[in-house]
Amino acid sequence: MKKLINSVDNVLNESLRGFGAAHSDIVSVNWEPKFVQRAGGTAKGKVALISGGGSGHEPLHAGFVGQGMLDAACPGEVFTSSTPDQMLAAAQAVDAGAGVLFIVKNYSGDVMNFEMAAEMYGEMHEGEQATVLTNDDVAVEDSLFTQGRRGVAGTVIVEKIVGAAAEAGADLATCKALGERVNAASGTMGVALTSCTVPAAGKPTFELAEDEMEMGVGIHGEPGRRRVKLMEADALAAEMIEAICKEDGPRSGDPVLLLVNGMGGTPLMELYLVYDAARRLCEERGLTIARSLVGDYCTSLDMAGCSITLTKVGDEMLGYWDAPVHTAALRWGV
Amino acid sequence: MKKLINSVDNVLNESLRGFGAAHSDIVSVNWEPKFVQRAGGTAKGKVALISGGGSGHEPLHAGFVGQGMLDAACPGEVFTSSTPDQMLAAAQAVDAGAGVLFIVKNYSGDVMNFEMAAEMYGEMHEGEQATVLTNDDVAVEDSLFTQGRRGVAGTVIVEKIVGAAAEAGADLATCKALGERVNAASGTMGVALTSCTVPAAGKPTFELAEDEMEMGVGIHGEPGRRRVKLMEADALAAEMIEAICKEDGPRSGDPVLLLVNGMGGTPLMELYLVYDAARRLCEERGLTIARSLVGDYCTSLDMAGCSITLTKVGDEMLGYWDAPVHTAALRWGV
Repeated sequence: MKKLINSVDNVLNESLRGFGAAHSDIVSVNWEPKFVQRAGGTAKGKVALISGGGSGHEPLHAGFVGQGMLDAACPGEVFTSSTPDQMLAAAQAVDAGAGVLFIVKNYSGDVMNFEMAAEMYGEMHEGEQATVLTNDDVAVEDSLFTQGRRGVAGTVIVEKIVGAAAEAGADLATCKALGERVNAASGTMGVALTSCTVPAAGKPTFELAEDEMEMGVGIHGEPGRRRVKLMEADALAAEMIEAICKEDGPRSGDPVLLLVNGMGGTPLMELYLVYDAARRLCEERGLTIARSLVGDYCTSLDMAGCSITLTKVGDEMLGYWDAPVHTAALRWGV
Repeated sequence: MKKLINSVDNVLNESLRGFGAAHSDIVSVNWEPKFVQRAGGTAKGKVALISGGGSGHEPLHAGFVGQGMLDAACPGEVFTSSTPDQMLAAAQAVDAGAGVLFIVKNYSGDVMNFEMAAEMYGEMHEGEQATVLTNDDVAVEDSLFTQGRRGVAGTVIVEKIVGAAAEAGADLATCKALGERVNAASGTMGVALTSCTVPAAGKPTFELAEDEMEMGVGIHGEPGRRRVKLMEADALAAEMIEAICKEDGPRSGDPVLLLVNGMGGTPLMELYLVYDAARRLCEERGLTIARSLVGDYCTSLDMAGCSITLTKVGDEMLGYWDAPVHTAALRWGV
């Protein structure tokens, strides 16, 4: 295993400490239990947005804490859900009197732990918490760690758009409803060229031959739809976009947000090439690319590969997308 | 070779087309010959900054075209210098009456081609062009493609700081002198865990055993100082920072900008961990971390590894560093 680490036991601690120090103008890190919150705190009367889950998907979620996006993120160990005590402590720290919205990727461990935290929190603050569950991955129903579809890169779009709404003063019910609409409007499909390697495991999560890819891979290296031979980027993007559009996806005439997301080990040059292919395919389908995002946003450690997300957007969502954001990983208008 | 591409011949064209489309609010792409310029053009009376060189180092340089940084970038084929006709056409397109500054990484091919372009341009516009040569890589004197030290990630810092000065109205001579000062104040050292694979070659540029790293590697996979056994991040960072500080590097009491740069195939989680190690080591030396940057800025295709850059900064450079920038890869204050 080749990784830039000291010991497998300290990967999260040292990486998180580096993250906190590099972005001390944006975030502060709480250590016992671990969560990341805005350096300036949450403005009184604003709905507080909290996300979290296993580490290894950076910049998700701590990289999205800051003005216009999350109020707190709870990082678990690599590919391991964060714990209810982290989520509860984060909620107590950032609750600014308008309630707490948990944004949770649909993985069984995350869902269970966030439910426990929400319950505990609800007992103390009746009616003041809600949850949005993301499940944008169209690849498979049920998977290694999930009942139902998995929550993947579309979560970034949910966090950005709901984050802007909360910043603009939307109440908890409105934020929850908006988050569910953005999630429902989003579809993602991923592909892996190589497996990721979990530090504690010390070897690749799955085997992939030199001429193979995993189509529909999950962000922890869970199996996708099928093992395929290496494809050209155009064919790859075509299969991914077909899968996204097939069920309830965007149709001719729809404006979409197109996210081409790197899995952690893929160079930007290739991501822009996939974006070019995806864009052409969307245009052939009559979709209008209203906004674009290309880069590493929801990764899977060192996996080479990418995912494509399409979110059908209207003027309200576009307005929130364009609103100022100041986080470690997304920043504009500030 | 596993890459998200269609054919090796079209990698640059398709990636550049995707880049241009994804960032059409910031840049426009000229195709014959190829260069990227600001979508809004260069303001009259501003010194025009042009960089370029072989592709495969994305986001360098096209990702740094925009307000507060470059006016144009000339991308060559992968790891192949751009040509004088690209540079000349870019200079003619962005010259806004205050002269053109070429920022050139010290590689023999780049230097030769930029010299030719500068000469041709100089014949047409006497006295209105100048060049800053970057050579921040402390690893080796002379290398596979270079006489003298190589220009690597420190180039990003030169482009940001000089870009802000040009935006603020500095004249050509001032921009050139400032660029040379930033370069002289910068030292970089890189390490590779894996080789990159050039698409046209179809196989790794060099062999590296499962327990080996290349210490001091160049951004094209050129040899560094020595082949070493896998090290822990702390030991690795210590050797890199020692090398940077040794000759004319920052000393106790100096404020520095610390850049931990990913080589393209390294997850963000590891880069923040290296940043944590580098930060501790700098503080032990009495250096003050005035500013930080962590991420993929000057890459080497899919190489796993990173580089560390330290730039000794004063108030003037910090002011320019903090000035607004609006490019595809660096954005703040806008």
